[in-house]
Amino acid sequence: MKREDFLAGPVTVTAYDWVPELAQGFVRDLRLRWALEEAGFPYEAELLPHAERESPENLARQPFGQVPALSVAGRSMFESGACLWRIAEASDALLPADQAERNACFSWLFAALDSLSPPVDLLAFLRVFAEDREAARRLEPQASEHLRAKLARFADALGGRPVLVGDSFTVADLAASFVLRNVEPTGDLDAFPTLKAYVQRHTSRPAFRRALEAQMEPFRKNAARYAAGR
Amino acid sequence: MKREDFLAGPVTVTAYDWVPELAQGFVRDLRLRWALEEAGFPYEAELLPHAERESPENLARQPFGQVPALSVAGRSMFESGACLWRIAEASDALLPADQAERNACFSWLFAALDSLSPPVDLLAFLRVFAEDREAARRLEPQASEHLRAKLARFADALGGRPVLVGDSFTVADLAASFVLRNVEPTGDLDAFPTLKAYVQRHTSRPAFRRALEAQMEPFRKNAARYAAGR
Repeated sequence: MKREDFLAGPVTVTAYDWVPELAQGFVRDLRLRWALEEAGFPYEAELLPHAERESPENLARQPFGQVPALSVAGRSMFESGACLWRIAEASDALLPADQAERNACFSWLFAALDSLSPPVDLLAFLRVFAEDREAARRLEPQASEHLRAKLARFADALGGRPVLVGDSFTVADLAASFVLRNVEPTGDLDAFPTLKAYVQRHTSRPAFRRALEAQMEPFRKNAARYAAGR
Repeated sequence: MKREDFLAGPVTVTAYDWVPELAQGFVRDLRLRWALEEAGFPYEAELLPHAERESPENLARQPFGQVPALSVAGRSMFESGACLWRIAEASDALLPADQAERNACFSWLFAALDSLSPPVDLLAFLRVFAEDREAARRLEPQASEHLRAKLARFADALGGRPVLVGDSFTVADLAASFVLRNVEPTGDLDAFPTLKAYVQRHTSRPAFRRALEAQMEPFRKNAARYAAGR
């Protein structure tokens, strides 16, 4: 997809009309909203009732019955990582001009999702989603240590630089800081001040704040309705 | 990277000279070897002593101190997902000609690694890697159910077709069957005969068998040396 496709519109991102509080601000349409805001590509959110995520219509565009899907110029795609790359390729704002640096961003995008995210997700399972709380707590120290080792490698790779590739913010930083943002409030980054600063710096970007507000707005609007079970 | 870059050589894939038996046949250089075999691109494995994976030299090409890294025409990249896509783009064997189908393969590659793999990895942690075995066993049913739900969605998306996109094997099938291969021996696919057949069919491909043999050969050769602690 090219820049013109995004600017010809309409560009739509599927999102939920509401999610439980725990997930608010973390649903993955936020990744796409953030990238589209950085790129300056106008988009509209197509809000799905949370209970209808496994409708035939949504399964046709997102096979796991989730969000987001991205529609550009009438073509639909899914998986936030794939969508992020397509947005980045069409923009000047999320990738360097240099081809070798673009290739490095491609590796780092996968690294954020497939090397950093797994230990983050494992800890989230143990801390939040596991139903047997006592068993989960017993496994936490091992999972924490596993994450710590990954973070140490990531911190070494980042070094003293503000961004992963080249000298400005790219889709690689967007993906990595989105993933690490999950463990910033939990204290896991406290031992890595450069990573804590990395996440805070990138999630302070105006494009991220706008994207976050856009995801949260319908949740607030629909909270009372969902609380009433309607 | 283009077809010519792969054919001009040398193409190298980093791999270990030995790993513990549990990991043999599952280290991720196998993904690249399989794709290169399908593409008909000659390559050489650069074998790293397992104990030296966090050497400065390896960290420079693979920031997490793992394998694989891929070097083509003097340019190095990392993350098996990123490498798979670059190999596929340069080949006629792993992507359809139709652009919409190529885009669908891109989404499905991410789906294999970021939607299918997380519940597979969570179960692997609980079944194999978790040190507190009793706590891990207690969490297994919930994680199994989580995987089962994802597999059901994947089976629905595949339907009665032999491949995910178009009418022949693509990089999307390579990635998905590689991930599902981890849970085929454990019985998790038994409730999904089409998925069991999908994995068995694709991992019976001659290219996969050659790739697997190429990964295993140094492990066998070096087994005695490692057993002796040298």
